[in-house]
Amino acid sequence: MPFHKETFDRIPQEKRDHIFTIAVSEFAQRGYAAASINGIARKAGISIGSMYSYFDSKEDLFLAIVDKGYELLERVFRELSREGSFRQQLLELLHTALRYARQHPDMNNLYLGVMTEELAPLSMRLSSRVEKVSVNYYHHMLQAAVNRGELRADLDIPLAAYLMDNNVLMLQLACSSGYHRYRLQHFVGERAENLEQLANSLCDLIMRCLQ
Amino acid sequence: MPFHKETFDRIPQEKRDHIFTIAVSEFAQRGYAAASINGIARKAGISIGSMYSYFDSKEDLFLAIVDKGYELLERVFRELSREGSFRQQLLELLHTALRYARQHPDMNNLYLGVMTEELAPLSMRLSSRVEKVSVNYYHHMLQAAVNRGELRADLDIPLAAYLMDNNVLMLQLACSSGYHRYRLQHFVGERAENLEQLANSLCDLIMRCLQ
Repeated sequence: MPFHKETFDRIPQEKRDHIFTIAVSEFAQRGYAAASINGIARKAGISIGSMYSYFDSKEDLFLAIVDKGYELLERVFRELSREGSFRQQLLELLHTALRYARQHPDMNNLYLGVMTEELAPLSMRLSSRVEKVSVNYYHHMLQAAVNRGELRADLDIPLAAYLMDNNVLMLQLACSSGYHRYRLQHFVGERAENLEQLANSLCDLIMRCLQ
Repeated sequence: MPFHKETFDRIPQEKRDHIFTIAVSEFAQRGYAAASINGIARKAGISIGSMYSYFDSKEDLFLAIVDKGYELLERVFRELSREGSFRQQLLELLHTALRYARQHPDMNNLYLGVMTEELAPLSMRLSSRVEKVSVNYYHHMLQAAVNRGELRADLDIPLAAYLMDNNVLMLQLACSSGYHRYRLQHFVGERAENLEQLANSLCDLIMRCLQ
């Protein structure tokens, strides 16, 4: 079930994208509770009446956006190469995560809200498809490399996937979020200025647990 | 500068703790924007007038709580053993992180709010002392183990500290937060039921990057 109403499908793509862009920015910067569907309509130059003909509630608008973000992430995962050495694939994953965060900083920061306890009941309404896509991607990538003999045979694949994703996620958040960039600076100082280079070093470090 | 007013110092410790407990729970469960100083006063059985004689604003009450959480974390770090092998120290760190999260689930979840972009300007008002304490702890622990020859001589200590803390933090959040527990389940399935055992396996995996 989509979170928007049929009316929303009938307006031009450009207008749909415009509403989403404004809404993502409002939710990411003000937080779910402080953002309002009226404020978003006003900023998007749309009447409140139209807005409610597209979405039943703020909750549905928020879920529609998060769902769109999941779609985007799914596409990112699908476009990742499944060729080359494991090291090359991990490097590509880290750099793609950084590029995604730079291209969609508000969307990336939106997940900081999704992670809070306040929004946990709401997040449960979301399909878990993105988690499935990412977990499957990691498992497949790790298993194939174990099969090729690039990684050790007794590797704890589920836990290795979790460790990898924890670090990809935190680096990605350091791209777009004030708190996470600040935290990273505390750990690595000026090296936080060059996240691409840091991603290369992180790749080397992660490779060691897996081999 | 403390975030509370002098009057707050003059009430009994028990009453101060009670106000903090209620406030932590409200902020953690409803989020910063949705929680109100009036609602907290009501739940704590305290008049609004008294509440404002203790704290100038919701912002100050929130910062006072986060600061108290930092104090708690500092104490946790100070009490960690600096004896034993590196592996023993890392195990102790992981298990202490889990115990802290189980004992203080609301306080632990409060940091999910501190991490959001919405609260970034507010977080900047906090001292960075907890980050300093934890970063120093990791650096010291890693450097000492390199010096003893337990970890490899060319280890990238700042980045290793960051990788360790990323994983400690995510495991700790899986203890108290709905979203993070759900995410962990996607990665490791039923093993998410026994976080202590998972911490042991995570310790083994992390050790490999460092040796």
